[in-house]
Formats: sequence, C-alpha cells, structure tokens
Amino acid sequence: MTVATENIGEDGFAEVVTLGENDPLRLTSGEILSPIKVAYKCWGKLNEDKSNAILICHALTGDQYARGQNPITGKEGWWPKLIGPGLAADTNKYFVICPNVLGSCSGTSGPKENNPETGEPYGLDFPVITIADMVGAQVKLIDHLGIDVLFSVIGGSMGGMQVLHWAVNHKERLNTAIPIASTWRHSAQNIAFHEVGRQAIMADPSWHGGRYFETDERPHAGLSVARMAAHITYMSEGSLTAKFGRNLQDREKLTFGFDADFQIESYLRYQGISFVDRFDANSYLYITRAMDYYDISADFDGSLTKAFEGTSVKYCIMSFTSDWLYTTAESREIVRALNAVGANVSFVEIDMDKGHDSFLLDCSEMFKIVSGFLAAEAQESGIRLP
Amino acid sequence: MTVATENIGEDGFAEVVTLGENDPLRLTSGEILSPIKVAYKCWGKLNEDKSNAILICHALTGDQYARGQNPITGKEGWWPKLIGPGLAADTNKYFVICPNVLGSCSGTSGPKENNPETGEPYGLDFPVITIADMVGAQVKLIDHLGIDVLFSVIGGSMGGMQVLHWAVNHKERLNTAIPIASTWRHSAQNIAFHEVGRQAIMADPSWHGGRYFETDERPHAGLSVARMAAHITYMSEGSLTAKFGRNLQDREKLTFGFDADFQIESYLRYQGISFVDRFDANSYLYITRAMDYYDISADFDGSLTKAFEGTSVKYCIMSFTSDWLYTTAESREIVRALNAVGANVSFVEIDMDKGHDSFLLDCSEMFKIVSGFLAAEAQESGIRLP
Repeated sequence: MTVATENIGEDGFAEVVTLGENDPLRLTSGEILSPIKVAYKCWGKLNEDKSNAILICHALTGDQYARGQNPITGKEGWWPKLIGPGLAADTNKYFVICPNVLGSCSGTSGPKENNPETGEPYGLDFPVITIADMVGAQVKLIDHLGIDVLFSVIGGSMGGMQVLHWAVNHKERLNTAIPIASTWRHSAQNIAFHEVGRQAIMADPSWHGGRYFETDERPHAGLSVARMAAHITYMSEGSLTAKFGRNLQDREKLTFGFDADFQIESYLRYQGISFVDRFDANSYLYITRAMDYYDISADFDGSLTKAFEGTSVKYCIMSFTSDWLYTTAESREIVRALNAVGANVSFVEIDMDKGHDSFLLDCSEMFKIVSGFLAAEAQESGIRLP
Repeated sequence: MTVATENIGEDGFAEVVTLGENDPLRLTSGEILSPIKVAYKCWGKLNEDKSNAILICHALTGDQYARGQNPITGKEGWWPKLIGPGLAADTNKYFVICPNVLGSCSGTSGPKENNPETGEPYGLDFPVITIADMVGAQVKLIDHLGIDVLFSVIGGSMGGMQVLHWAVNHKERLNTAIPIASTWRHSAQNIAFHEVGRQAIMADPSWHGGRYFETDERPHAGLSVARMAAHITYMSEGSLTAKFGRNLQDREKLTFGFDADFQIESYLRYQGISFVDRFDANSYLYITRAMDYYDISADFDGSLTKAFEGTSVKYCIMSFTSDWLYTTAESREIVRALNAVGANVSFVEIDMDKGHDSFLLDCSEMFKIVSGFLAAEAQESGIRLP
C-alpha cells in the first residue's frame, strides 16, 4: 500500500489493480467474476487511522479521471472544481479515491477487457451487472486499500445510485453519503430512453452482435445516436432554448436540406461523434442496463423506508430545479423515507437552469454545500488531518 | 364535383386528385412542384353555399383516414370520436375534409411517390418542404372543391401548426381555427429530438442515401429507433409510470440480458416495429424537417403579435397539462399574442395526464369544447345545414 501512505498530492496517482483472485465477486445475477481488474485514481493522503477517505462514484460515461488530465481524451477531468486542494473534497485533508465502475471501459473489468478464461475481449460474454455489483467491486478496492470505513461516498446521477447502494447495503462502512441529481429507482421513462440507445447500437450492423472487436468496424453510428438521445435528457428545455434557440449554424438562412441548419443539430451531432472515440458501445449497453435494473427498494419489499431502517449514515442530498431526468420529486421521496426512519438528512434543491448535467458544471452552491457538510462532519467526528 | 354535392355520409369518400397542372405549387424554398397529387378523405355533405366545410389537419405520422377503417393498416382512423354523426365535427351538419399532407406517404406527393419527370420515386430529389407548403397544397384542394371559406380548420400537434399557418397566412379563407396541443415554433429541444430520429434513419445502411426503393431493403431499424425516441416525447412521465412502471414483461424476474425485461421496453419496441410497416422513412425525414423549420413568427420579424394583426379568425386553443412536447406555456404565448391584437380567442388547458398524445385519445372534455365552439359559431354565422 505505497499509494495510500504516501502523499500523492493534487496530481494524483492512477493504477489498475487485480482483485478477487481468492475471493471472487459474486454478482447479483448469481454469476461469479474472478479475478477482476479495478482502475482507479486517488489524490491526497490517507491519514494514520485511515478515517479520511472519500470515495467518488462516477456517472454513466464517466471514469476514474475526475481531476487532472484524462490521458485518453487529453481533456480535464470531470469534477475538477469539486476535488482538489482547498476545494470541497479537499485533497489537503482527505484521501480521495475515484474508481472506474465495473462494466465500463477505462481499465476496470468490462466487455472491452480480456476474459481471463479465453484471452480475448469478453464482449457480450461479460455478465450483465448491476449497480450493486459496481459497488461490490468498489468494496474490494476499499478492502485492498485497507480502509474500513469511508468518511464519505459522493456521486452524481448514476454515481448517486452507487452512493445510495453503499449507504443502504454497506452502512457500517461509511459515515456520510452525498447523492446528487440522482434517484432511488429507474422510472419507465428513464428505461425508455436507455432502451432507445441500446436499440440504436444493436441495430448498427457494425455492432456484429457485440463482437465488433473481431472486425475493424465499430458501431459508431449507433453509439452516436444513443449518445444524442441521452444528451437531450441531460439538458433542460430552457437551457437548450437559451443556448441555441432556433439559431442557425454558420449560415444566414435555411438551406432546405438535411444538413445541420440549426446550431442545436450541429451541437448534438458533435456530442455523438466525439463520444464514440472515448467510449465502448458494449459498455454503454451494460451500464445502461445496470441503471435500468436499479431499484434500491427492490430487496426491501419495495419499501424505501425499510431500505433505510437502522441507518447511522448522515445524508446530504441535492437536486436541481431544472433536472427532468432525475427530478427533485424523486430526491424528495428519498428524503421522506429517511425522515420516516429518523435518519440524519440534509436536503437542498439547487435553483439552476442547466438540467441534469448541472452537477457536472460550475455550480458554486453545490460545491459550498458539499464543502460545508464535509467540514462540519470532519470536525464533529474528529477526523485527523493526514 | 360529384363528391362535394352528394351526401357521402358517415362512411366517407377517399380519392387522390392531381392538382396544380396549370398553376404550380411554389414552395417556400423557391422550388416549384407541378403537378401535385393530394390524397384526401371527406365525410358529410357540402351545403349549397359551401359554407359548412371543416378541414382536418393531421399530425406527423397521420393520414387522411381520420375516420373509418384505414385501408392500409386495417385499423380504425385516428380521430373517430371527433368526426362523425352527432360528434364534435358533426358529419350530419358539416362537410369534413382530411387531406394527407405534402411530403407524407399515403397518396399525396412526397418522396415515396413517382417524380413525374423521371417516372421513378422522388427519394431525396423531392424538394424540402415546410408547413406553409403543406397548407399550400391544401389551398389547392379547397380551391378544387370550390370552397371559398372554410368554416373551420382543426388539427393537433403538427396539425395545429397547419391550422395556425392557415389562420395567419390565409385568414380570409377560414372562420374559425382550432389548434390543439401545438406550438407556434419548434424549440431547440423539439429540433433535437427530431434530429436524433433523422440521424438514426440516415445511419441505417439500408437507407442507401434515400434510394432504398431501388433495393429490396428498407431502413426499418433506423426508422424504428426514430419512432421509439419520438414516442417517448408523446407520453408523460406520469402516464409511463402509471401504465408500465417497472413491471416486467411476461417474466417473474430480471433475466440479466438485453431482451425486453420491462414492459416499457417491449411496448417501445412494438411501437417501433409496427410503425415501419405503415410509414416511409424518407417521408419521416421530410416531415420532421418541415416541423423543425416551422416558426409562424419568422415572416413577421419574429413577432407573434404582428403575425396575428388584423385577424378576424376566431380561435379556440387547447393544451394539455401533461404535454411536455408542446407545453401549455407555448399555447399561452399564442393566446397572449392574440389578446394583444384584440382577436377573438378561447383558451382551455385540459387536465389530462397522458402527455402530448392526449389529443388523439378519448378526451371527452376536448370533444365537448370543439363541439360547443363549432355549434355556437355555426349558430352565430347562420350556417345552413346541407
């Protein structure tokens, strides 16, 4: 454990560990994965009693590169204003860990990685996984790092689903939970949008039944359409109108053709095209499936209240006014269930017009709330600085 | 004009007329179409002074078979409870006409029909059309039927766009306008959803650059994905939850695969698959494009108020509480502009939880409002029964 005891500072340290060789990961489906690879990045320094660790859970198309340059895309990480020295997840105080989720395509085991049994990519031979399985892999990583109890688990969107799974199913292993712009179960509409994306991928002949890695083709067209459809759900109608309206793209009048006359068309096409370079189509199928399968109440007779019974985790829940994918109403359902069991819960609905993706944007109110919540809890529980 | 002078009764009469042979249709793009075919169906009997005609305008994937069996699908028409003896558009009193729009695929000129110049289907050689052009073709039909002034023009969704175009640009040729669940311009979000559908179609290799009619393939996969994405926007989140929730499809537990585990997935797939049998992929491109190009204020310096200036048309506008595609807020913008010019306008927001598609469903409040509005106007203007 050289990583965790050294001060790796604000630049962080990224590696891929092989876990579960003697202790297989038992999946929700009943299948077994062993060994698994978990790619993660971490920042800061673990303190002596290993009580200052924060786990960051990423969303559908995220990865471990939450802060610092992403070596694959060359772009900045996806939560640079939340994680860092003096920021909410303060790397001067906390040891921050961000793993790539199971099923994804940035180094952790998933359909793109080699099946140890065959030596070739899993493709659709990778077992269908759940949010619980993603968390299962994270538990193995935390065990590997020698951490018993996480100071906090933080995530937005699908990251928030993992946070809730941690808090409900591993409640003795975390002090605080911060699910942002998230939900407790995927709704019919959520599933519907994902199904459109999956059908677009699977309809692409270049998908080759998931075995495109055996060819020199990739289902870029289908994956691009999937991303475009999803991207609309990440933005609010108001933000699309404010940003694009009916503005034309580099032209003064309509062209009466099927090119991208409107800026919104050009923008969406770019979102689709740029996505396929960084994401694996099969991973998109697996992760959307995991999200659709997600219902935190399912193991508790469908009762959200039962799911939270006996919790000692402190919750800080946030939603955004303009988020129509995972609405404030859904966050309120979580809050009500937590209140019903007398849990310690803070809830803030942030007034921001950028839709679901607000949690990934420069939202100073969100950063302040996370910062204040963590600082208060660190003081109360007497977390020692590293 | 045998049709219009005979009493064709409640079963109606359908035909395809060739129009504009000596008077070409000048399109918004500047291109010219001549001749054009217009397929339409009509019911009831035109009165002596031809003052009792109602024009019904259909939505994106609609057709002329609003009432009675659709000979292509074998199914009942799409507005059977609005049109008929004793119903709102009472075929005992009114002569009701429903044309298939320009660019569509049910007999009216469009990409599927033969180009008279080449004798083969137009495909993408069909000119890109607008809502104004659809109305242009309807004007030719109404001229052909010898009708100077329509008693009413009624339509939902894209039908409502045609209604507004009639009322703004041909205001001397109609007495009343009833746009339902519609809008005055396509928003960035509206365009975005359509662009996803178009990209899905054009990404399908079976589309063959629009010339699939030369092959034995059809871009069914792409068109199906387009329909699935669009269909989500036609239903409310609440109605999807109420109808499907997370219910499983013919199974007791999750299968951990990519089959349709959930009812909503199965339902959406069915919507996609059944659509391709009745609709032409190129028509889908053309009509969505026409809708995206639609902005009734564009010819009036972007001023909706200016568009309505000097109108003598009486408006009855309806929206649905759960419609998130064309929201009540958008209908209210129309109402405010009409109020600003002192127009005669009634507005009702109907409380119905079925989303945009409410206008196609069994909505007794909508039927009553249309019925009452038309009856009052018929009495006031002294329309004689046929």
